[in-house]
Amino acid sequence: MQADLICIGNELLTGLIENTNAGFLSRRLWASGISVRESVVVADDENAIKDALERSLGNSEIAILTGGLGPTDDDLTREAVAGILGLPMVLNEDWLIKMESFFTKRGIKMPEGNKKQAMILSGSKVLPNKRGTAPGAIIELRGKIIILLPGPPAELKEMFDHQVLPYLVLNNHGVQKKVKTLKCIGLGESMLEETIKNIGKWNYPPLSYVAKGYEVNLQIKASGDSEEANAAIQGAETILRETLGDYIFGSDEDTITSVVASMLLSGKLTLSVAESCSGGLLSDMITDIPGSSGYYLGGIIAYSKRAKSELLKIDPGLIEEEGEVSKPVATAMAEGVRTLFQSDYGVGITGYAGPESGKLKEDTGLVYIAVSSPKELVCNEFYLGGGRRGVKERAAQVAFDMLRKVLIKC
Amino acid sequence: MQADLICIGNELLTGLIENTNAGFLSRRLWASGISVRESVVVADDENAIKDALERSLGNSEIAILTGGLGPTDDDLTREAVAGILGLPMVLNEDWLIKMESFFTKRGIKMPEGNKKQAMILSGSKVLPNKRGTAPGAIIELRGKIIILLPGPPAELKEMFDHQVLPYLVLNNHGVQKKVKTLKCIGLGESMLEETIKNIGKWNYPPLSYVAKGYEVNLQIKASGDSEEANAAIQGAETILRETLGDYIFGSDEDTITSVVASMLLSGKLTLSVAESCSGGLLSDMITDIPGSSGYYLGGIIAYSKRAKSELLKIDPGLIEEEGEVSKPVATAMAEGVRTLFQSDYGVGITGYAGPESGKLKEDTGLVYIAVSSPKELVCNEFYLGGGRRGVKERAAQVAFDMLRKVLIKC
Repeated sequence: MQADLICIGNELLTGLIENTNAGFLSRRLWASGISVRESVVVADDENAIKDALERSLGNSEIAILTGGLGPTDDDLTREAVAGILGLPMVLNEDWLIKMESFFTKRGIKMPEGNKKQAMILSGSKVLPNKRGTAPGAIIELRGKIIILLPGPPAELKEMFDHQVLPYLVLNNHGVQKKVKTLKCIGLGESMLEETIKNIGKWNYPPLSYVAKGYEVNLQIKASGDSEEANAAIQGAETILRETLGDYIFGSDEDTITSVVASMLLSGKLTLSVAESCSGGLLSDMITDIPGSSGYYLGGIIAYSKRAKSELLKIDPGLIEEEGEVSKPVATAMAEGVRTLFQSDYGVGITGYAGPESGKLKEDTGLVYIAVSSPKELVCNEFYLGGGRRGVKERAAQVAFDMLRKVLIKC
Repeated sequence: MQADLICIGNELLTGLIENTNAGFLSRRLWASGISVRESVVVADDENAIKDALERSLGNSEIAILTGGLGPTDDDLTREAVAGILGLPMVLNEDWLIKMESFFTKRGIKMPEGNKKQAMILSGSKVLPNKRGTAPGAIIELRGKIIILLPGPPAELKEMFDHQVLPYLVLNNHGVQKKVKTLKCIGLGESMLEETIKNIGKWNYPPLSYVAKGYEVNLQIKASGDSEEANAAIQGAETILRETLGDYIFGSDEDTITSVVASMLLSGKLTLSVAESCSGGLLSDMITDIPGSSGYYLGGIIAYSKRAKSELLKIDPGLIEEEGEVSKPVATAMAEGVRTLFQSDYGVGITGYAGPESGKLKEDTGLVYIAVSSPKELVCNEFYLGGGRRGVKERAAQVAFDMLRKVLIKC
């Protein structure tokens, strides 16, 4: 099975918006055994969309079109597809009612323009959009499958994973490819590669490396869903886990945040955090996980000296003497927030995120992170790169990893 | 002038590597007044490359091919281009010598495979590669321009900015384009379009709309850098500002966060925030801005009832009676955090981010946001979509907008 991707939008051709949908769909299709023959971006222009779709129908079994399903005049995907396939458009009452209630709930009268989003291609399977007003569609015609998806990535991803993939699998359009991803933290990409090379002869499926800040994803890939493929991946995983130990924090869909969350949840443990230079990012990442209110009690963003001393009860003399960015202050933050929230674990982060925060330019990236638990108190010093945002992100990754290591021991 | 982009590589079609080259080239070309007609990704396959190039030559003046210039057997761009253009390949002695010294410097004998990187299309202009062994090329033939660039982004960017762009500008292939972006918030994309349509006859440069969560970017574009172009954009901006008023929060590089930050800074005002469902995101966004410690005193992530009552001093009876997600609690959070941090402004956010947070499934997305100032106390109710992350992001955008509106009046 072979698919073509047709992403529609002037904003993609001017580079105003990065085309993340093509990469996402490519990865998902590839993992389902459907190869992408060609991936194209065309303008919000009816003829350009028609040309691309005609070409795709002549070459591949599946055509996936993204974007151009909005309410405005430059949203032309429906019209172009209807033209090429020779299908009439019909009003879908159900979707019209859903859209109207979507607007009513928000206290707005539905704009006239949105009505066209309830016009669907005759005979198509409507894909409800949980996050917006543009429904998707699947059309089976003359042995081809044409799939229409909305452009906004959050809407597209939800719809593809929960509606399109199950449809493709159910209809046997894909051949499973087996992939296992091991997620590592604490070893750089080249160090990781060197460590693995030292294992010696590699009789297992090939590996690929993708670095994401402080993490490296290690992919093991085998073709087919046979017993051999499973055994080969299992063999590779075993030897990699033996070699890398705790540098591996999880696999596949795990994130460093979700792994820490599971450990807290299963141990019935609670957490609070005190953030200075990370400015709320750690807390934001924790609360991105559904159900985090089960273990996360809250946090203090102590962005001023006064917040550190009055809220976290850190001795102002200590701050004066050691400086706001110091090991003793990070430690006192972790302990202070743990006491304040009466949580089992406390994290404290203080540092210079830059660009001009420290006394010296060289201080940018200097971060102290502390974890306090009933049994233990650890604090480490780091020099982190990547600019202001990069320092915040790496500080959060490192903090979760420190917390994970403390939780492993408990 | 119109260009086509042809990005070559199996790793792009499987999504293993994100195709950042297409976005980069699109932005650069667009800023130089060259529009991209179509941007396509094809496999490491000679026929696929040939098809794409033929199609491009039939439609656009410029074809830019990236990737497939490496030393291995699956690097086939040179061969495909030579085939379509009917040009022989010749050895470029200069580049061969450069490559050999590149390897000698690193203490390695040049692998045999690299020799083919010194084979260039007869009559082409060679573009030296400062960061790798694959040279680029510019070919002018029968009124068309064909440009070959290496795939690795660092090599491509350096070569494009320092060799290709100067060539295009020198040969007058680009026309400067003038763009002004007005950033709007509080009106959906279709409502915005309707409001603008109501202005009546539009004698100004064309507009385009890009929605980002609760914001919509409105671009006004004119060709050329003439006085006429400037006046046309100025005219459009004036009438849009008259029509949209405070729905416009900024322009060009402004963000809703940076606009609020400037208002606080220039008014010598301070801010603190109390977040429940947004979980630290608001604070994270504020602290992404360098110098935010000048007006941001800190925040409380009140993710538990106890944090709301003990830290923010909200009457537990009120929480019990009204519920954690309610107007009175949001208001008390904004006032409580302002008192606690002794800041001029306080923000309180409480809501159900989902997926299963409220008592009823329909509650997901219900958010109350309050802003407290010395003169004023406002609180609004919202129903926000976009899934857990989307609710958090939209809540933060809306909170900044409410804060902006209160600050405008002060």
